[in-house]
Amino acid sequence: MLDTMTGPDLTIEHVRAAHARIKPYIHETPILTSEYFNDLTGAELFFKCENFQKAGAFKVRGASNAVFGLSDEMAAKGVATHSSGNHALSLSYAAGRRGIPCHVVMPRTAPEAKKAAVRGYGGIITECEPSTTSREAVFAEVQAETGAEFVHPYNDPRVICGQATCSLEMLSQIENMDAVIAPIGGGGMISGTCLTLSNLAPQMQIYAAEPDQADDAARSFRAGHIIADDAPVTVADGLKVPLKENTWHFVSHFVTDVLTASEQEIIDAMKLTWERMKIVMEPSCAVPMAAILRNPEVFRGKRVGVVITGGNVDLDKLPWTLD
Amino acid sequence: MLDTMTGPDLTIEHVRAAHARIKPYIHETPILTSEYFNDLTGAELFFKCENFQKAGAFKVRGASNAVFGLSDEMAAKGVATHSSGNHALSLSYAAGRRGIPCHVVMPRTAPEAKKAAVRGYGGIITECEPSTTSREAVFAEVQAETGAEFVHPYNDPRVICGQATCSLEMLSQIENMDAVIAPIGGGGMISGTCLTLSNLAPQMQIYAAEPDQADDAARSFRAGHIIADDAPVTVADGLKVPLKENTWHFVSHFVTDVLTASEQEIIDAMKLTWERMKIVMEPSCAVPMAAILRNPEVFRGKRVGVVITGGNVDLDKLPWTLD
Repeated sequence: MLDTMTGPDLTIEHVRAAHARIKPYIHETPILTSEYFNDLTGAELFFKCENFQKAGAFKVRGASNAVFGLSDEMAAKGVATHSSGNHALSLSYAAGRRGIPCHVVMPRTAPEAKKAAVRGYGGIITECEPSTTSREAVFAEVQAETGAEFVHPYNDPRVICGQATCSLEMLSQIENMDAVIAPIGGGGMISGTCLTLSNLAPQMQIYAAEPDQADDAARSFRAGHIIADDAPVTVADGLKVPLKENTWHFVSHFVTDVLTASEQEIIDAMKLTWERMKIVMEPSCAVPMAAILRNPEVFRGKRVGVVITGGNVDLDKLPWTLD
Repeated sequence: MLDTMTGPDLTIEHVRAAHARIKPYIHETPILTSEYFNDLTGAELFFKCENFQKAGAFKVRGASNAVFGLSDEMAAKGVATHSSGNHALSLSYAAGRRGIPCHVVMPRTAPEAKKAAVRGYGGIITECEPSTTSREAVFAEVQAETGAEFVHPYNDPRVICGQATCSLEMLSQIENMDAVIAPIGGGGMISGTCLTLSNLAPQMQIYAAEPDQADDAARSFRAGHIIADDAPVTVADGLKVPLKENTWHFVSHFVTDVLTASEQEIIDAMKLTWERMKIVMEPSCAVPMAAILRNPEVFRGKRVGVVITGGNVDLDKLPWTLD
């Protein structure tokens, strides 16, 4: 059973099975290119636009794989999570497509817009106090009452296999890639990328990108063990969470390097991408471009896949308009 | 010679010739779809993303057709225009690709960002005072000095044939369209759409969309002759200019109806499109969606091509963030 496996157990067959399972519920998102950014960086960049994905982010791949992999008996009890970001939206979307409940535990202090978005995808919110103790207690209650299956946003092998389908698509869409770069928070996308590429294109380089101000993955990578930070502050709000054992397996074994960027570099890269590529993407997605611009020598002359992970942004609070 | 023709002289062969001529210099832009907007409108919408076009707007089609249709002798003297918007960017881009000068007369009071954008594409700016008299005098001087060929932003038959290639692509990209809707300012895009569809798909409906506050095309359409407004005020700043004889020919003969939308409807449609489709587009491009939402009965059950005309927006001045 996939849900009792750990990182090292996962194979490319699990990824192929995930792809077949989730195909009806996700988009094969397009690849965009930009002469402007190619000239600017000296690399050939291929942007994998998961901001155009269902529910607005790549997270729907992993969530759908978890939801549609459940037996009918397990599925009937629903799924549950305590993320308040893209994973909650994605899990709600996938559960809705299967016609089963999705329980989301969120702090009562979470922005109304986030709650509305989860409800918009059919998620059922149970509020907790804004503390880890309360969240864990309320989540345990919800699970006890409903028997819903917990789907972790990134440490779950089913989720990692789902995220791995993104680079599977990239391999068929982009010829002769030399490298892939993606943002790293908890490491779900990077782990999926490692799972696919280490099996199908082991010569390809895999770069993870994160904010200077939330550089726990970079420090973990150099130290050789997981370092977790307590509540880092960064505009790239999807990248604050720490690595866990299953994602650490992939990061420690298969990642070429972890690069970082400053807050200003991230905001500048975000705005420049909106201006030149005309796409709406989250601050987290700008971190790879910011890292490429900070380290041009690493990428010059290479064909690089850049994962644009999501597009769920509060348009009333764009980072370059804030003081 | 195409530049001495008028609207009624243009044929589908001119459009096909334009397409062959400009293909190396433009993108065949993608079609995006959105389940959300289909559910919201009851129509099947196909968004033709000219915001992803070279120089950020469909205007590069007409500009390229004009520039690359010149004889070598004429081309050597360059091209000229007095637009300060997307046409100036597009003409500068096309002239740059041919390696000839592009002269742009702009008021010295125009925003620095607009001047920088034109220069960024290689345009040579000559400043005038912010009045029609000064603009015309300075433009005449530039033309006399350089012998540059004037390319009007929309009334030029070469430009209309270039814009017509957009719907030519749509016909090959979207099966069984029932209707196309596009914004109307001076009428270049709509005229091109009429030119292509009246020849290749005469049963297809053609809707033009414009702001309530710049509804000169709607009033012209109902009156049966051109009505030009003096400096209308609207957030859809690409749609302020009046029809001219060549575009009026197409609007009066082939347009099904001209629909309008309020400023608030335009801003709401723009923000909603950014939020749900994750694309950056100009206020002008939101007018068709606003018109569809105001007139759902016109589009319900139909397969509708929606032209997203451009993506050149000042990200520091988004209309929903302004007081």
